Amino acid sequence: MVASASMEQTSTGPFDGDPVFELHRGGKMETVSTVPLRGNDDLSLAYTPGVARVCEAIAADPSLTADFTWVPNTVAVVTDGTAVLGLGDIGPAAAMPVMEGKAVLFKQFGGVDAVPICLATKDTDEIVETVARLAPSFGGINLEDISAPRCFEIERRLKAMLDIPVFHDDQHGTAVVALAALENALRLTGRTPGGTRVVISGAGAAGVAVARILLAAGVRDLAVTDRRGVLHSSRGDLTPVKADLARDTADLTGRTGSLADALAGADVYIGVSGGTVPEEVVATMAADAVIFGLANPTPEVHPDVAHRHARVVATGRSDFPNQINNVLAFPGIFRGAFDVRASAITEGMKLAAATALANLVGDELREDYVIPSPFDPRVAPAVSSAVAAAARVDGVARR
Amino acid sequence: MVASASMEQTSTGPFDGDPVFELHRGGKMETVSTVPLRGNDDLSLAYTPGVARVCEAIAADPSLTADFTWVPNTVAVVTDGTAVLGLGDIGPAAAMPVMEGKAVLFKQFGGVDAVPICLATKDTDEIVETVARLAPSFGGINLEDISAPRCFEIERRLKAMLDIPVFHDDQHGTAVVALAALENALRLTGRTPGGTRVVISGAGAAGVAVARILLAAGVRDLAVTDRRGVLHSSRGDLTPVKADLARDTADLTGRTGSLADALAGADVYIGVSGGTVPEEVVATMAADAVIFGLANPTPEVHPDVAHRHARVVATGRSDFPNQINNVLAFPGIFRGAFDVRASAITEGMKLAAATALANLVGDELREDYVIPSPFDPRVAPAVSSAVAAAARVDGVARR
Repeated sequence: MVASASMEQTSTGPFDGDPVFELHRGGKMETVSTVPLRGNDDLSLAYTPGVARVCEAIAADPSLTADFTWVPNTVAVVTDGTAVLGLGDIGPAAAMPVMEGKAVLFKQFGGVDAVPICLATKDTDEIVETVARLAPSFGGINLEDISAPRCFEIERRLKAMLDIPVFHDDQHGTAVVALAALENALRLTGRTPGGTRVVISGAGAAGVAVARILLAAGVRDLAVTDRRGVLHSSRGDLTPVKADLARDTADLTGRTGSLADALAGADVYIGVSGGTVPEEVVATMAADAVIFGLANPTPEVHPDVAHRHARVVATGRSDFPNQINNVLAFPGIFRGAFDVRASAITEGMKLAAATALANLVGDELREDYVIPSPFDPRVAPAVSSAVAAAARVDGVARR
Repeated sequence: MVASASMEQTSTGPFDGDPVFELHRGGKMETVSTVPLRGNDDLSLAYTPGVARVCEAIAADPSLTADFTWVPNTVAVVTDGTAVLGLGDIGPAAAMPVMEGKAVLFKQFGGVDAVPICLATKDTDEIVETVARLAPSFGGINLEDISAPRCFEIERRLKAMLDIPVFHDDQHGTAVVALAALENALRLTGRTPGGTRVVISGAGAAGVAVARILLAAGVRDLAVTDRRGVLHSSRGDLTPVKADLARDTADLTGRTGSLADALAGADVYIGVSGGTVPEEVVATMAADAVIFGLANPTPEVHPDVAHRHARVVATGRSDFPNQINNVLAFPGIFRGAFDVRASAITEGMKLAAATALANLVGDELREDYVIPSPFDPRVAPAVSSAVAAAARVDGVARR
């Protein structure tokens, strides 16, 4: 009905012909009606006067929101633009292409409607109160690319305030997929979580969450490092989040020192820090070592180097085997949570998602196949089923 | 890729078989990708690593948001649920079906992507600050069903803060369409705006906005009434908004008294108040009177009554001729504003929209056809062209 000329995009010279920019021209998503609007009869059902009866029914029983609106299938993808990919604090406007990308992945892989929300504030209190005010519009909140340590407090407070899933994907999406790959790597190398010595470099959003999920999965000998070395309580420079983590990790084993000190004899290295680990340090790891260098685009240990010293190697990149990609987790996790109208995403739901992902590999498990491909059509259904079941076990399912 | 079973809706007994509720089951809209996501190559363009280059370009030049995101074509439909249809303060959850309906009308009639946002606050300051924080995510803000007088302050402050269109549809959508119908009614009855005596009942969002646009269109003898009668400065009970309006309307003519007093001899009555005007009062209007009873579902003067005393009659209902329906205005107004990347919606753009609407009737003008149908395919293109041209004249166009 609208003149197509009005939708025409003007060309912006410097980007013409660049396939990335051509694909992004006009954005990557749209909103679409799912009901017919052919004439006055349709209009009187979908809008006034008919819609008033639906409003009145929901006013009388707010739980009907879940039946008669798009809310229960819709997630807000919320950022303040402070930690976008590896680009850092580029602000809300420049963050939008990533949030749109995330939104289309939610729909493509999970059938979840998603709205990108880029906020013009970096203040923790303001972000929390803004998201809380938006909450009636959404069935869940996916926090994205918010810098540490603010991301921890923002997620914790919103989880406490809201009765819908709140999930910081940079933390938990990465943690779920890393755990899935690690479960298979341990299976392949004949290890158990409780008998494996693990080192994580990086104590930001991903590092903290990977550490937490590994502890929940039964890893007992774990050291997490930041730029100054292993987190342990004798250090005087730890943030509250790092201090908590130190108590549950290196304090229990007494490990201190540098990343190099920690890696000597370690079974598993998970890098979520950026930077490069020298080959001579990698060489000190145990036999049949497992190395996940997850920094993008430059892994902490290049796969060519890692393969000289480790049996299982994973990265965050799609051009090497064993890609640790969040898209394996977040669509299915929200799909499963939404299917049972979960009030939260629990630790049990995340662990279940990881195990479901790991189990998809099944008998095909081998060194270069410890995690399925994002385009494996079994992924989202397997994750969502496991997450829904775990929600029931954890008592957060509402149907 | 997602199991369809997971999208299945359970049935809720009491509403089964009701066509309004059946249509609303699962909501009325969805988000959809406009780019292919068939495999890793697509993913590396639409998401990491490719997307990082688009983010960096926007960080360096924020105006590129308009070329490479969905933002410039997307409006937030924002409410606090305090004045929903005729239902009053039913809250944000119960308001969602109306906001979704509005969103799908934006797309259907204007090609505008729209996101319904229902806020869990009624506080003026909180609404203003929340919308301002959301602003980087949207190309425009459509305020909806926010009660008076808060709606006036919220719109005024947001217009001052933001460089994107902010438009309270209950005010200006109604005003534009009412003016369009009135322009044709005056043409038909041989009147001019400056020579016509007009009475508006209702000094809420719609009443104030209709009064303001009629003044801008040249009406000079205008009385606006609330429950206590004509607004004039000798009254001590006026809100600031009503006091301003009194100075520009009845103070200039000295009219006071009741609605019945004002209607005696009046040429035009526009009802946006609800309630009923008695037939004996309607009978006192001038010859060739014009009566717009816009309350829904019960017009202030039923068309059967109005026709006994007036030459041109309009309502807000689709089952009578001459429907004053906001959908004639808001999709084309935002389409036109977005087409030229307008920084605001000016008075000139609203007047241009009204005249464009009125002119579509053309030579077919007659008593029962003073305003086109919402399903007339010429409407949105005509409105958007006129609005875009007026934006250029008013200096708010950015391309």
